[in-house]
Amino acid sequence: MKLLRNCSQLVTCNNEDQTPKTGDSLKRLEMIEHGALVFEGETIKWVGNESDVATQFADARFEEVINANGMLVTPGLVDPHTHPVFAATREDEFYMRNAGKSYMEIAEAGGGIRNSARRLRQANEEVLFQNGIRFLNRMLRSGTTTAEAKSGYGLSTESEVKSLEVIQRLNGAHPIDLVPTFLGAHEFPDEYRSDREGYVRLLIDEMIPLVAKRKLAKYCDIFTEAGVFDIEQSRRIMSAAKQHGFELKFHADELKSVGGAELAAELGAVSADHLVYASDEGIARMAKAKTIAVFLPSTTFFLGHRDYAPARKMIAAGVPVALATDFNPGSSCNTSLQATMTIAAIYLKMTAEELLNAVTFNSACAIGMQKQVGSLQSGKLADFVLWDAENYKQLPYFFAQNPVTSVYKRGQRVV
Amino acid sequence: MKLLRNCSQLVTCNNEDQTPKTGDSLKRLEMIEHGALVFEGETIKWVGNESDVATQFADARFEEVINANGMLVTPGLVDPHTHPVFAATREDEFYMRNAGKSYMEIAEAGGGIRNSARRLRQANEEVLFQNGIRFLNRMLRSGTTTAEAKSGYGLSTESEVKSLEVIQRLNGAHPIDLVPTFLGAHEFPDEYRSDREGYVRLLIDEMIPLVAKRKLAKYCDIFTEAGVFDIEQSRRIMSAAKQHGFELKFHADELKSVGGAELAAELGAVSADHLVYASDEGIARMAKAKTIAVFLPSTTFFLGHRDYAPARKMIAAGVPVALATDFNPGSSCNTSLQATMTIAAIYLKMTAEELLNAVTFNSACAIGMQKQVGSLQSGKLADFVLWDAENYKQLPYFFAQNPVTSVYKRGQRVV
Repeated sequence: MKLLRNCSQLVTCNNEDQTPKTGDSLKRLEMIEHGALVFEGETIKWVGNESDVATQFADARFEEVINANGMLVTPGLVDPHTHPVFAATREDEFYMRNAGKSYMEIAEAGGGIRNSARRLRQANEEVLFQNGIRFLNRMLRSGTTTAEAKSGYGLSTESEVKSLEVIQRLNGAHPIDLVPTFLGAHEFPDEYRSDREGYVRLLIDEMIPLVAKRKLAKYCDIFTEAGVFDIEQSRRIMSAAKQHGFELKFHADELKSVGGAELAAELGAVSADHLVYASDEGIARMAKAKTIAVFLPSTTFFLGHRDYAPARKMIAAGVPVALATDFNPGSSCNTSLQATMTIAAIYLKMTAEELLNAVTFNSACAIGMQKQVGSLQSGKLADFVLWDAENYKQLPYFFAQNPVTSVYKRGQRVV
Repeated sequence: MKLLRNCSQLVTCNNEDQTPKTGDSLKRLEMIEHGALVFEGETIKWVGNESDVATQFADARFEEVINANGMLVTPGLVDPHTHPVFAATREDEFYMRNAGKSYMEIAEAGGGIRNSARRLRQANEEVLFQNGIRFLNRMLRSGTTTAEAKSGYGLSTESEVKSLEVIQRLNGAHPIDLVPTFLGAHEFPDEYRSDREGYVRLLIDEMIPLVAKRKLAKYCDIFTEAGVFDIEQSRRIMSAAKQHGFELKFHADELKSVGGAELAAELGAVSADHLVYASDEGIARMAKAKTIAVFLPSTTFFLGHRDYAPARKMIAAGVPVALATDFNPGSSCNTSLQATMTIAAIYLKMTAEELLNAVTFNSACAIGMQKQVGSLQSGKLADFVLWDAENYKQLPYFFAQNPVTSVYKRGQRVV
């Protein structure tokens, strides 16, 4: 058994009833001042006040005592929306966009997702794997210990399978636990630009059944957006995915209000993500269906857009909310949930308590991992981060400082 | 002698005539593909193509060969505007502001700079020193090797001198070289709220002469702003400072257009900083006077404001431009010039070349250090950074990733 002691604040982020936090439980942050944590192997055995350790473990000899030196400790962060499998970075588009080219213009000029698809198809798995390791390392150094990972830069059966196999390999090789999502419906590939129905049929008849049969993904996701997959296409594709046993996620209402939030709620999706232009009706339906809103404000920031997701409205409506980096080479080359929290504090007007809940317990719920991670309690994985900070409010405030001093994943120190 | 080799790009940032870059020289980035650098002690001896090392140094034995592993190398970054001497962080104000309180409202409620002043006056020098070391370490890990450092949270003769002495001590104790700036005119302290003229006289008659006599600062700076020091007060204070041998800097036109840019040009200031609301007349006068514009976009971001400094207009007018973090506990708790570059790319629409010049050579000019640092050339200090990046365009693009792998200051590896 090992003991973690001398924490100024041990932020546990627990939710007793184990459901996504909304309302008062979202606004409250569970923590223990001068807390301590005992773990054995990869599992937490006990969490409580340091003053109780002596009586609780009177006869125990700890094989290691970790001194947090009066610092803040939180659960390992959970990033519920990332695209880490790609062949090449896309810094040139960043400058094109800043010089005035729009997302749609860059896409129509052959950039954007289809640019990544052309490159990924030509890349061998080793390149994709090494790129993935490089950026997962950066995520880990920023305190992320569990992440969702999407395919979606293949856009063909072969290349989507290749991407999901890379995610499987990364999951085995890297300390971060990855939850795989199939995102074949990320864009229409070049060869189907004038036969969109053909690609919808390929997704429904070939890709979804194959990925399901080979158990390469837990979630199916789709980019429901003006100019990409419309509502009717989305309903057909995601209904098929559901029938094949996938749980559902949506890229919804990012650039325009198209009814993505409503469709996500209708089909019982676990989460709808982006939601910058979610309608009031969509918000109401998400609240009723308990669909989790995953906000991606680093994307809005990175794209230089002015409008951010209506987070306060959604929180007020009782929607459970989470935050993700949306790490990808095009619209959000950000690996740090801490940076995402800073942006969400400033532009989504979320409080420090909401922010911490949104990158731990609620983000674990958004990828169905809340039984294993997302809070510090007995029986869960010993995933935790030591921060050079006196209190949790400093994390979003310490902008671009990365105060991570060490990261433990499954009981092992990995940073 | 030591050799640095195997750089994908050795970005030198030189300017042959050693004046602040404007126009074409600002738009161009000096660099050597597959470059190498030779240094001895703390000084650069030679910079050139790696293929020339063998002939240039035929008989030399290098005591150390540093392999950059095909990575990007740049000069150590120069941060020309920071406030690193304070007693306590101010995270609570960050959330107040995000909840809708304005900068002025927080100041009027007793927060802001005067809050920091009350705390600094009570703090002993050791607390200030340790806080400084903590945040200078974060700056260093982000690639900054030289920085300007302001007093300005004392607002009394005793506490301003205490602050400048802490900067002197930090400069001796920490690898980052600090250039000290006296900013007694940062705000009106509590005891002079109803006797503003009294504080102006204290600055002119006591503080400026004393700081000059004790040689505690190279620059004198002032917060020329609506509600703080007006134009006439600023002209009197800064004229006195000039007579005492200080070079001048201005916090100008940050929140409103008050003629700060014009006054900075009129008095021959080295730089005017912030400039969000600089007038066209002020821009024209700065261009003529060669006053350097130091943009602080992380502050605009951190304050959640919508309007950013008119960087493109100023560049077009021929104003030399630099970037700084404005690191301080209130309006910009940011220690990373890389993050500032990202924000400047997105919101100031600066190109990758302009951004790199603005955090190296031009920022060195903004603190009069261009003969020692800011570019990689023979005779200058061996201050350089190795980045986990293939090219310089990735630095602003790798948002919140801190790709620094090592930092050399005066020829010594310090990160």
